Amino acid sequence: MGLFEKHQSLLDKAIEALHSRTFFAAFPEHPSPAVYGETADADGQAKFKDLLGKKFEQLHQPGAENWAGQEESPYLQQPLGITYPAFSVPVLVNRARQAFATWRKVTAADRAGILIESLERVKGRFFEIAYATMHTTGQGFMMAFQASGPHAADRALEAIAAGYEELTRFPQQVLWDKPMGKYNIRLKKEWRAVPKGISLVIGCSTFPTWNTVPGLYASLVTGNTVIVKPHPGAVLPIALVVAEIQNVLSQQGLDPAICQLAPDTFENMITKQLAEHPEVKLIDFTGNSAFGSYLEGLPGKTTFTEKTGVNCVLLHSAEDIDKVAANLAFSVSLYSGQMCTAPQNFFIPEAGIQTPQGTVPFDEFAQKFTDQINSLANNPKAGPFVLGAIQNRRTCDRVAEAEKLPGKIWLRSRTITHPQFENARTLTPVVVETDAANTGIFSKELFGPIALLIKVKDIEQALRLAHQLAKEHGAISCGAYTTDAAVREEIADTMAMAGTPVSFNLTGGIYMNQNAGFSDFHVTGGNPAGNASFTNPEFVVKRFTWVGHREPAP
Amino acid sequence: MGLFEKHQSLLDKAIEALHSRTFFAAFPEHPSPAVYGETADADGQAKFKDLLGKKFEQLHQPGAENWAGQEESPYLQQPLGITYPAFSVPVLVNRARQAFATWRKVTAADRAGILIESLERVKGRFFEIAYATMHTTGQGFMMAFQASGPHAADRALEAIAAGYEELTRFPQQVLWDKPMGKYNIRLKKEWRAVPKGISLVIGCSTFPTWNTVPGLYASLVTGNTVIVKPHPGAVLPIALVVAEIQNVLSQQGLDPAICQLAPDTFENMITKQLAEHPEVKLIDFTGNSAFGSYLEGLPGKTTFTEKTGVNCVLLHSAEDIDKVAANLAFSVSLYSGQMCTAPQNFFIPEAGIQTPQGTVPFDEFAQKFTDQINSLANNPKAGPFVLGAIQNRRTCDRVAEAEKLPGKIWLRSRTITHPQFENARTLTPVVVETDAANTGIFSKELFGPIALLIKVKDIEQALRLAHQLAKEHGAISCGAYTTDAAVREEIADTMAMAGTPVSFNLTGGIYMNQNAGFSDFHVTGGNPAGNASFTNPEFVVKRFTWVGHREPAP
Repeated sequence: MGLFEKHQSLLDKAIEALHSRTFFAAFPEHPSPAVYGETADADGQAKFKDLLGKKFEQLHQPGAENWAGQEESPYLQQPLGITYPAFSVPVLVNRARQAFATWRKVTAADRAGILIESLERVKGRFFEIAYATMHTTGQGFMMAFQASGPHAADRALEAIAAGYEELTRFPQQVLWDKPMGKYNIRLKKEWRAVPKGISLVIGCSTFPTWNTVPGLYASLVTGNTVIVKPHPGAVLPIALVVAEIQNVLSQQGLDPAICQLAPDTFENMITKQLAEHPEVKLIDFTGNSAFGSYLEGLPGKTTFTEKTGVNCVLLHSAEDIDKVAANLAFSVSLYSGQMCTAPQNFFIPEAGIQTPQGTVPFDEFAQKFTDQINSLANNPKAGPFVLGAIQNRRTCDRVAEAEKLPGKIWLRSRTITHPQFENARTLTPVVVETDAANTGIFSKELFGPIALLIKVKDIEQALRLAHQLAKEHGAISCGAYTTDAAVREEIADTMAMAGTPVSFNLTGGIYMNQNAGFSDFHVTGGNPAGNASFTNPEFVVKRFTWVGHREPAP
Repeated sequence: MGLFEKHQSLLDKAIEALHSRTFFAAFPEHPSPAVYGETADADGQAKFKDLLGKKFEQLHQPGAENWAGQEESPYLQQPLGITYPAFSVPVLVNRARQAFATWRKVTAADRAGILIESLERVKGRFFEIAYATMHTTGQGFMMAFQASGPHAADRALEAIAAGYEELTRFPQQVLWDKPMGKYNIRLKKEWRAVPKGISLVIGCSTFPTWNTVPGLYASLVTGNTVIVKPHPGAVLPIALVVAEIQNVLSQQGLDPAICQLAPDTFENMITKQLAEHPEVKLIDFTGNSAFGSYLEGLPGKTTFTEKTGVNCVLLHSAEDIDKVAANLAFSVSLYSGQMCTAPQNFFIPEAGIQTPQGTVPFDEFAQKFTDQINSLANNPKAGPFVLGAIQNRRTCDRVAEAEKLPGKIWLRSRTITHPQFENARTLTPVVVETDAANTGIFSKELFGPIALLIKVKDIEQALRLAHQLAKEHGAISCGAYTTDAAVREEIADTMAMAGTPVSFNLTGGIYMNQNAGFSDFHVTGGNPAGNASFTNPEFVVKRFTWVGHREPAP
């Protein structure tokens, strides 16, 4: 039985899920021994530790021109000491070109089978990947496991499913039979889905697999060869994924260079050289807006970007204001706000927030919000694991700067002690009050655990500002609290026009930061926060071209 | 009964046809009295004549700032004297913005119903549009009727169907129910297809409706408002279409400015000003490569272009060489080669073309080809009607220049007398022999009735050149003649990689220039001849953005 047949039923389910958009997950998100095995956690951790301080030898990429590696654990604040085989751009492109000649001729079904098989193998390494993710990104264990493991694998499967569906959307061959009155013109027609060529997928430092695998798998399933250029600060998690893809390719007798890892160093980045190479036709990128916009402007490339955004929360009215404060406190604390979907700007009417118990004044809500943050941060069984560690030192600088902003500081940021890692680089959220007039303060992304409480005249002003910020500076998520149906629809309509999904009235164990494969489109492409969306049809159809040939039928 | 219900069955059939890609036509292509009525032709001609020399008053666009019109009949070589209401760019954009506020809220079903209704009304004016097309483009009556009438309407219906399918591809609302072990998280999720805004559709002079309606209807069905900027030399055919769209909108109580006509003059073109307007988000364009590439490079726009290409014919082997010569002679003669799909470069091996009767030498094929062109041009019952007239005087200059090319002139171009229009601007094809080394001669589009017979070493060289030309200069069609299955597959594969559809071994009444709605994708987007394709999923999905909102389920 081939790999397509082996995985066909999962592929079918995934395609169905894409359309139903109800809950679907192929990879269990809980790191439960019952699912992953009693020793899976310990084994994964041991395997991760065994990689430290060594050459990473698992890739099928012989002839390294160099060995590069600069990762550092935010928990240990010391280098991992792992080095990866590095290659010059011409070598990477030559290998990708050669591999393309065979990969493009593999059928869509076989490609899908191979790629799902790689995910099954990656599943066997979820714990190893989780520890690799913790010690590169600073994520807490649970997020590292879920985001880099099952959630990423679900996103990858989603891309495979979306790509496979589009590749098989039109017939390979038909008889076209046109009545002309006295006779018929009969043509044999055929259509080929022609991949664009070499695809460059550029990773980021905070979600090194979750944000990389959609473009990676979308390009591969549509027949392109891929060069993965990881962030120099977070290589290992995606290196493990690439290794498993190469293992399956190799076992199938295919050239492992169909998917290559292209590590570089902070001092000698090869991203631009790769992106500008004329044979690189597709570019996926997650990262800062300046570089993303440069990539979008490169002529002759099809680009898919996720850049930065300014995410807002609109507070109008609520059933239970304490639950609202708790939910939002968790949202800004989760992974210390180092998420593209984390809220930053909290718009609160100067007259307060309406509740069944009466209006909650601005200051009272601010106090509840900061109390909830403190309560979470001070809880030794939750705080350190929810907050995780700070990936990049510059985030600490940004938090320090936020404390110098004009306006009342409701909560100062501080470090907390991590029970497992005494050297962990931690920071709790800073909460600053400002006014709607101070657009200069809140009109840019302040990446990290920074929350701005912005006093607005009313919900209309809040919505106007949130819409404008999303249109001009981008937004990936939005939170809104209102019990008024008309206000809800006004927010839904206005933010939709700014390409921004809104999470309404979230309380309890679900947060605006979260984004579910097979249901939530991640980023819309409709505002400056990015031009692409995981995984809408556009995300896959732009990776290949339909070409039809025809000939008189016998 | 609403317009959606009225047209739902046709819409369903059209969507089915999009996927089956077998023969489908909603609008009969033959101008038969049995279908269109006994007096339809005479009525249409009378209506067309009645428009001449007057203000065109059929648009719902009050308050003209100016009346502009410079069309000239290639058959009469005199102005039509029709003027159209002209507006400044701010007025056009203001009206489009205002109309957008309502149009975007009309459901996809209602939009589809309204747009199909407009096509039904256009159907009632096919003859009028045919005469308008003849006397602006120079097309013969039959092509003018078919291309601007039923074939254009089929392409428009195709765009409506493709757009409607994408708009309804994901659920409007679902319950997302995620098991969490002891409890479930239940969210009500909804998705909105958010149109991008104002769409600019720029027409061309040779196919003023066929090349305009796909972008026009694709943008409208996805909820954008459209400004149609026709070529100043070919306004009337699309003005009649816009008038009918506005009639239906108006009858439905909608703002006719949802679709506006924006005529300008050769001396004072408003295209750039419209294209660069920040509120114009979508641009469709058919025309020259320089302007198309400028449009593609505009930041913040989604562009759909059909530019120029260099179409090749590869001659390797054939069953019946006379039928091949006749078929290709017709292809270069049809509308005097003023088609983006017309062949230009004929690659013939120096050793000749293989046939069951032996090898046909280069010179013998060249003679057969020119004989067939002469035979068609000299046939008074066919020649004038197939050739039509020359739209643009510069095409005549180009033909004159072609006769000065180095290399044997197999056939000089000449004028022929049109039995109905003694002043018709006519030109028969010029046929020039050249060599594969003279890439400078054949590496650009020579728009018009110009055929280059290029002597190549063998089919491999021919294919290498055709592939390279398509990759570097674009190609919209390709013809190939071979009876060898291996050669066929090599051509099919190589040209597919250059994004070029190949018509193999066409003889008889079907030609490489022809392109059928619901079956043939027109242009692939895979080479410099254009970045878009009628009508693949990409052509519609890029016109709107999916935005999803969510909220705890009660």
